[in-house]
Amino acid sequence: MSLPPKKKAENGTPKIWDFMRTHDSVAILIFNTSRQCFVVVKQFRPAVYMCEMERNHPQNFEYKDQESWCPLTDHLPASLGITYELCAGIVDKPELSLEELACKEVLEECGYEVPITNLKKITSYRSGVGVTGSKQTLFYAEVTDEMKAGEGGGQPEEGELIEVIEIPLQDSMNFALDETFPKTMGVIFSFMWFHTNVTPTLLKQ
Amino acid sequence: MSLPPKKKAENGTPKIWDFMRTHDSVAILIFNTSRQCFVVVKQFRPAVYMCEMERNHPQNFEYKDQESWCPLTDHLPASLGITYELCAGIVDKPELSLEELACKEVLEECGYEVPITNLKKITSYRSGVGVTGSKQTLFYAEVTDEMKAGEGGGQPEEGELIEVIEIPLQDSMNFALDETFPKTMGVIFSFMWFHTNVTPTLLKQ
Repeated sequence: MSLPPKKKAENGTPKIWDFMRTHDSVAILIFNTSRQCFVVVKQFRPAVYMCEMERNHPQNFEYKDQESWCPLTDHLPASLGITYELCAGIVDKPELSLEELACKEVLEECGYEVPITNLKKITSYRSGVGVTGSKQTLFYAEVTDEMKAGEGGGQPEEGELIEVIEIPLQDSMNFALDETFPKTMGVIFSFMWFHTNVTPTLLKQ
Repeated sequence: MSLPPKKKAENGTPKIWDFMRTHDSVAILIFNTSRQCFVVVKQFRPAVYMCEMERNHPQNFEYKDQESWCPLTDHLPASLGITYELCAGIVDKPELSLEELACKEVLEECGYEVPITNLKKITSYRSGVGVTGSKQTLFYAEVTDEMKAGEGGGQPEEGELIEVIEIPLQDSMNFALDETFPKTMGVIFSFMWFHTNVTPTLLKQ
């Protein structure tokens, strides 16, 4: 997945930059109208765990250039690597549209069979501009309990182990801004987007 | 900077994961009250450029495993690698607080000498959970024209080449949601945060 550093001249000065080649992705803010809650996923992230490992045991990272290096001499609870995220997936099937991929992820990860017409594109942006630079397109999907077609949880055969979490609408902004729940900016941004763009409509109904 | 893949057993299944070791970071939403505009930065991102290169010339990436591989046979305009971002920097000076680092970045990149008391922490989140997993803390800084102490532009000796851009408040949400301006989610989220949390106060004044 990683590429060798490439040289790039900018302003006449050669520059070397490390980066990783990754896929574009889709992310989906899911709101269950039957129970007025957001549906997000919770999963173990090896990269987050390693960050916490280094934060807690910086001395273990001093010998990282050695062949036999292993930072896992003092184990930390796996919970330190857990993050709350939007349902999301990479764009790796050229035959499917972004909307089709988004529906597929909602089904695989969260168990809802959502019609493509229930998807609304919010916007797109660049993620990880420092190292990956890929584009993520963010969708909003309204679901109901009737659309529940499975348990979700991702594809265990691909190593996915995903817990589906419901966040009640009335708790959502407290959750979004509470730093004791580690999460991606996608969760915070999309909850705020919902409160600005969707909540006023809900109140009218 | 990159580490070898590590094995991690989850649910009893061994898992191999590529990731990069990166630093935590700070990002700052800057609002100039003298001229009622946001101050953001614009810069060339090698990783974004390579993504666009692959999107436009996928055939050049077919031989990527060869020793002599070079994807740059057809050049694309450098503008395809340009993104709009919040002023930001990595946390690489243990002797400085996050607030002090944020003030330093505002001065280096945007040229404003901002008192630490003008900084307000918005929240923190995990960035790039798939590959880096580091934590970013987001601040809000109000500045005035009187605080202008330099041109900004980053540190050319470290290879930074940053353009300082002002986005008028009244155009900011259109800018945030206009996908023809490639940008990070940080820009979109923080502009929306401002409109929800700061604009009401401005209107009262």
